[in-house]
Amino acid sequence: MTVRSKLYEGKAKILYATDDPEVLLTYFKDDATAFNAQKRGSIEGKGAFNCAIASHLFKQLEVSGIATHFIEQTSSNEMRVRAVKILPIEVVVRNIAAGSLCQQTGIALGTLLEQPLVEFYYKNDALGDPLLTVDRLLLMALATSEQVNQLRAMALKVNDVLKAFFLQCGITLVDFKLEFGLDQQRQLLLADEISPDTCRLWNQTDDDPQQRVMDKDRFRHDLGDVALAYQQVMERVLKHTL
Amino acid sequence: MTVRSKLYEGKAKILYATDDPEVLLTYFKDDATAFNAQKRGSIEGKGAFNCAIASHLFKQLEVSGIATHFIEQTSSNEMRVRAVKILPIEVVVRNIAAGSLCQQTGIALGTLLEQPLVEFYYKNDALGDPLLTVDRLLLMALATSEQVNQLRAMALKVNDVLKAFFLQCGITLVDFKLEFGLDQQRQLLLADEISPDTCRLWNQTDDDPQQRVMDKDRFRHDLGDVALAYQQVMERVLKHTL
Repeated sequence: MTVRSKLYEGKAKILYATDDPEVLLTYFKDDATAFNAQKRGSIEGKGAFNCAIASHLFKQLEVSGIATHFIEQTSSNEMRVRAVKILPIEVVVRNIAAGSLCQQTGIALGTLLEQPLVEFYYKNDALGDPLLTVDRLLLMALATSEQVNQLRAMALKVNDVLKAFFLQCGITLVDFKLEFGLDQQRQLLLADEISPDTCRLWNQTDDDPQQRVMDKDRFRHDLGDVALAYQQVMERVLKHTL
Repeated sequence: MTVRSKLYEGKAKILYATDDPEVLLTYFKDDATAFNAQKRGSIEGKGAFNCAIASHLFKQLEVSGIATHFIEQTSSNEMRVRAVKILPIEVVVRNIAAGSLCQQTGIALGTLLEQPLVEFYYKNDALGDPLLTVDRLLLMALATSEQVNQLRAMALKVNDVLKAFFLQCGITLVDFKLEFGLDQQRQLLLADEISPDTCRLWNQTDDDPQQRVMDKDRFRHDLGDVALAYQQVMERVLKHTL
């Protein structure tokens, strides 16, 4: 019998300890938050959709040579992952301008970026997850200069893999947020999740700026059919491999 | 007789054309604003204090080999400057943590930075002058990569000169904001002003976090004796040369 000890409950997931100190269990919840948790709600089935999507995507990334914390999916809402110490940095990769990039710069929504833009944000709810320059990140000792270079390189590689993968699914990968952690050997592993909660995904066959949205922006901006969009992403993702 | 044609009125200064298209006249106003112009007021004598301070500091910088737009002070509130096209970038140099750096990172007010921190902000009131990464700055084509390097180098040199100068005056240079412009030969010149409106200046002989403030933070945070602080900065500045 497995005894579960809750280590951490986040906005969308719960982390449990297991008998093995190097292995944790991630439970995906249906809870959804947006705008730094000012908006809260629940999306029926989201936990299971995201767990299936993330599991499948982590597998594709592992096959492509990217070290992740993923071990295996153990049930509809649960995956076993390697225990890591999460860096308090959100690494965002952008292929098309959207969200805070547009709000903070005035760049028009939907502007295709010539090169992927890798950005770092401070994972700190109290401060509202602010944008970090590399200088600030180093000043705050959130990572070493070498780790910053490694994060950037890994994020760009993840982008290459995911962009190609989602293309097969008829989905445009607009941007996404990654989190990384250090294992006991201080090796950087891709952690957290990759799902419509953490990516902006646009249906390629739809030009309508609201209809095409297949991600948490449906929840953020009350576009309706949130669960359906997540389910459609899952169905397309599970049908493809690299 | 000089005919004055107003080219631009900002929050603290007015820019007039002169008979010479390469020369402008800057008039320093007593008006003060803070928090992206949400707070407005007037500081009696500020225009004259700042005009005298900026004129004297520009001279010190010119002597130290930094190209500025300054030509000469022509009256209590006016200086003649070279006409430049201002880059929409605020270049901030920080020696000690204060202001938005503390608010956005959680770094404690007064933390001495091991190295001066050079930061870029988008000069855009509608967007609230947001912090820029170099990648964003380049993406927005606000400057070229070469200009960014030049801005950083000039800002650091200005910091070296001003830090040493203010030290002589018994004042700690905490941080400051610079603006740069391109002249008709597309040479980068230091422009705008350098004054208690654009610098954080702490009286070295005073440890009290409110008493020591000799800059616009007295206005921002209603610390009182705002004009007196500006006047004292002027008196000390005018007594010293490098």
